[in-house]
Amino acid sequence: MKLVDDLLKGNRVALSKTISKIENDGPESEEAVGLLFKHTGRAYYIGVTGPPGAGKSTLVDRLANRILDRKEKLGIIAVDPTSSFSGGALLGDRVRMSDLSTREGVFIRSMATRGSLGGLATTTKDVALCFDAFGMDYVVIETIGVGQVELDIADTCDTTIVVLVPESGDSIQAMKAGLMEIADIIVVNKGDREGAEQMVAELKFISRLRERDDEWEYPILQTEAINDKGVDELLTAILSHKKHLKKTGKFELNRKRQIKLRVKELVEKKIKLHLEEQVLSEEDLNRYVHRAYKKKTTPFQIAEEIFKKIK
Amino acid sequence: MKLVDDLLKGNRVALSKTISKIENDGPESEEAVGLLFKHTGRAYYIGVTGPPGAGKSTLVDRLANRILDRKEKLGIIAVDPTSSFSGGALLGDRVRMSDLSTREGVFIRSMATRGSLGGLATTTKDVALCFDAFGMDYVVIETIGVGQVELDIADTCDTTIVVLVPESGDSIQAMKAGLMEIADIIVVNKGDREGAEQMVAELKFISRLRERDDEWEYPILQTEAINDKGVDELLTAILSHKKHLKKTGKFELNRKRQIKLRVKELVEKKIKLHLEEQVLSEEDLNRYVHRAYKKKTTPFQIAEEIFKKIK
Repeated sequence: MKLVDDLLKGNRVALSKTISKIENDGPESEEAVGLLFKHTGRAYYIGVTGPPGAGKSTLVDRLANRILDRKEKLGIIAVDPTSSFSGGALLGDRVRMSDLSTREGVFIRSMATRGSLGGLATTTKDVALCFDAFGMDYVVIETIGVGQVELDIADTCDTTIVVLVPESGDSIQAMKAGLMEIADIIVVNKGDREGAEQMVAELKFISRLRERDDEWEYPILQTEAINDKGVDELLTAILSHKKHLKKTGKFELNRKRQIKLRVKELVEKKIKLHLEEQVLSEEDLNRYVHRAYKKKTTPFQIAEEIFKKIK
Repeated sequence: MKLVDDLLKGNRVALSKTISKIENDGPESEEAVGLLFKHTGRAYYIGVTGPPGAGKSTLVDRLANRILDRKEKLGIIAVDPTSSFSGGALLGDRVRMSDLSTREGVFIRSMATRGSLGGLATTTKDVALCFDAFGMDYVVIETIGVGQVELDIADTCDTTIVVLVPESGDSIQAMKAGLMEIADIIVVNKGDREGAEQMVAELKFISRLRERDDEWEYPILQTEAINDKGVDELLTAILSHKKHLKKTGKFELNRKRQIKLRVKELVEKKIKLHLEEQVLSEEDLNRYVHRAYKKKTTPFQIAEEIFKKIK
């Protein structure tokens, strides 16, 4: 495929076009990702998540500049939970990244969640693969750390950074939302605000409650992204976590787990399609459903009958 | 099944035990739900969702008391996004409902999301069916309106109420999170707080932006749940929405859509199990995955091969 060849040669327009194909889930997107797959595996995946207003975009911006200073390349995927009817108006945050986007070696892509829920996690992962095959050293994925989709994306990353701000109850909320369980590094951003010290203390307390099966003790860092403070320490922590993953073999395990997940998703998608196109027409299904609505059968009996037909 | 017979006779202990079986996804749970299914269809499902701290529990408490005053019965399911390691400590909110739980005709169940993500939406729906078969007139499901699971649960309900509080930016956040698209009724709770009027104005503005394919114009109500204000108006709005659904035929369409969804879930579950147990062992899959990790194949090629084996 010419598009893929061009991408692999380092053509940014081809990269952009391939990403668009993936986002639109066009007919060639699966083929393209399949071709790109063999050229992936070099990039390191960093997830940045946390509640809205924690300053994730600014932190990513500063971190990205550090990476570029080291003459390394990166791709950034910003997943925005935009409502379908509010359109792109709320993406204004990204404007702050404009300085960054003029630098060489970086590629930024915003993706909206509404309207594509469900498929979003897969799309994001495929775009990450594009960046990887393109030759990026790092792929940074920024999400709002709530729903399953976001957790799923974070799960894709080698290092997941949870960003919080000193705000009463925020550490409790993060804990409730399960953020602490996915964190490899915790950042208390806006560290000049009142309550920052207390929050770090709370988080240290919480970290002792956590039972994790690995030996990694996540660092709790203080940053002021807006003033570019604490960002070097963050990069150091990321690289230290990377070392840990490689040393313990968890890096390979994670990657294999992701491949397995992807295979399962693809098989399920194929079966679903087969089911809808070959085994059971929408009309037949509707007839079944009507009978269940009238309490003449149950969803369980219907499922059993359909399953027998497949076999 | 004796348990089901007892439940249908109105035995509360049997109801409680059946719900536990469903929560633990025990071997008999599918059979129990299947038997109960034919006795469902009478209850009206109300979803209450919104950000943490909006006062959902208090509002549900007041609403429940109104329903009981009308000599009607209800079941309440409170879905708490509790972290698995924080345990039940954060469920303290529910204590406020203790007065309610002493009244006759109400049954309250809290369910934690962590650890059961993915299965949670199904579990919640099955518990709702139990309440329905038990003879409840209403089933109220309370969730934090974020992730896909919560949206999925809200989708199950006949009337979905989105609860917000006057707080700067809260209406924007709700919009971004897609809450406005699922709302049949919007409640601005803590209506005595500063900014309540402005928020109602904002929400009215947003509502005009919304394009929905039905003719229902969602009411925007102000309540002070803690002082029991505005709750009658809320109940009136719910009943008016119920009337609307019945009149337009959307009630039946919604219910059928839910049955269809359930059938599809069940079929997919069966296929998945069949795949894992009969077609492809974990060892075989791991061998495939290792080859993909070494870039000798791709997830797409593997999925194709597995799919061919199934056929």
